[in-house]
Amino acid sequence: MAKKVGVLLSGCGVFDGAEIHESVLTLLFLDKAGAEAICMAPDTEFEVVNHLTQTSGGKRNVLTESARIARGNIRNLKDVKASEMDALILPGGFGAAKNLSDFAVKGPEATVQPDVKRILEEMLSAGKPVGAICIAPATVAKALADKKPEVTIGTDAGTAAAIEKTGAKHKSCSVDMIHIDQKNKIVSTPAYMLGPGIKDVAVGIEKLVNQVLSMI
Amino acid sequence: MAKKVGVLLSGCGVFDGAEIHESVLTLLFLDKAGAEAICMAPDTEFEVVNHLTQTSGGKRNVLTESARIARGNIRNLKDVKASEMDALILPGGFGAAKNLSDFAVKGPEATVQPDVKRILEEMLSAGKPVGAICIAPATVAKALADKKPEVTIGTDAGTAAAIEKTGAKHKSCSVDMIHIDQKNKIVSTPAYMLGPGIKDVAVGIEKLVNQVLSMI
Repeated sequence: MAKKVGVLLSGCGVFDGAEIHESVLTLLFLDKAGAEAICMAPDTEFEVVNHLTQTSGGKRNVLTESARIARGNIRNLKDVKASEMDALILPGGFGAAKNLSDFAVKGPEATVQPDVKRILEEMLSAGKPVGAICIAPATVAKALADKKPEVTIGTDAGTAAAIEKTGAKHKSCSVDMIHIDQKNKIVSTPAYMLGPGIKDVAVGIEKLVNQVLSMI
Repeated sequence: MAKKVGVLLSGCGVFDGAEIHESVLTLLFLDKAGAEAICMAPDTEFEVVNHLTQTSGGKRNVLTESARIARGNIRNLKDVKASEMDALILPGGFGAAKNLSDFAVKGPEATVQPDVKRILEEMLSAGKPVGAICIAPATVAKALADKKPEVTIGTDAGTAAAIEKTGAKHKSCSVDMIHIDQKNKIVSTPAYMLGPGIKDVAVGIEKLVNQVLSMI
């Protein structure tokens, strides 16, 4: 039977939601590896960023906008349990640090969205692997700080310092590589935290997907 | 110097805009081939489809929403000339047949958005190749009907008949293949007109991108 892998989205667009390229590449490499993706997102509101002008204004719903990436095939995060899947992957984009937690605003003092925290804790308790891409490792680190997770967001010193203040450990990593926290089964890759382009982030994301699948 | 390839988007989401997977795969395979993508979209309004409930309501802007796929790096179609690029690719999604033309509503009687028609005519006049994915070949066929283009949208008999009524020729094609109109330098692939999944549509889209690049 195909491995079932949750893909936790946070909207649709790099500046206020899930980074679209990272999300689609995750779905591509899961499908190529024969795994079944289960897309999910929290049913919450977020502040819209116009991606043409980079100005803010108006509200949209995280689940509704995430459904664009999932072609309508998506579940409300609050209804999803860790027992239904073998692994969970969080693509990046500002949504991962604005809609899944408020790390982008509050750094180490961030609050993680309750269902995001719950599903991450459930996965870890069940010994199931978690992948986190781009800035998503910051939210994972905050949610699971008491497990002292090791993650990477690349090389950004300020973000790395904020992650370490949560109690987590940050490891530098290049865009074509992944960092593996063997103890907690957490895999991370910098993706667009480093860029520069889609073919470059694809290398790290493919490694992350395959590593996560190998830890099931 | 890198080949410059226009990517004409029609929003952000399969039901009311550019199909996200097809658009991202196009950008991925262009980057892998060393080509530079120039994303563009018309500055027009469209009717929003909620991708969770599939109900319609409200208006958004095609250029603004397309900017999500392009990570903000996008141009207004009306300012783009064929002389600035070596080829042009149109991903699919309902936006390609609702926002770039009204083929989805009017079939062979469709009107093509004026700047879409202009850029397609400019490309053909300059002998530059055009790629069209999924339902986008219907809009290309209507825009260039006087050239009697050959395109594919897969195997859907109703859509194929509507395309042939424009004066174009429809050729059946599987999702992992492309159809090449050598005379007009138009390449098409069915993608999500056939599916079934992202890894399957990726095969045809990679062939399309590489064929378009080879015709430059």
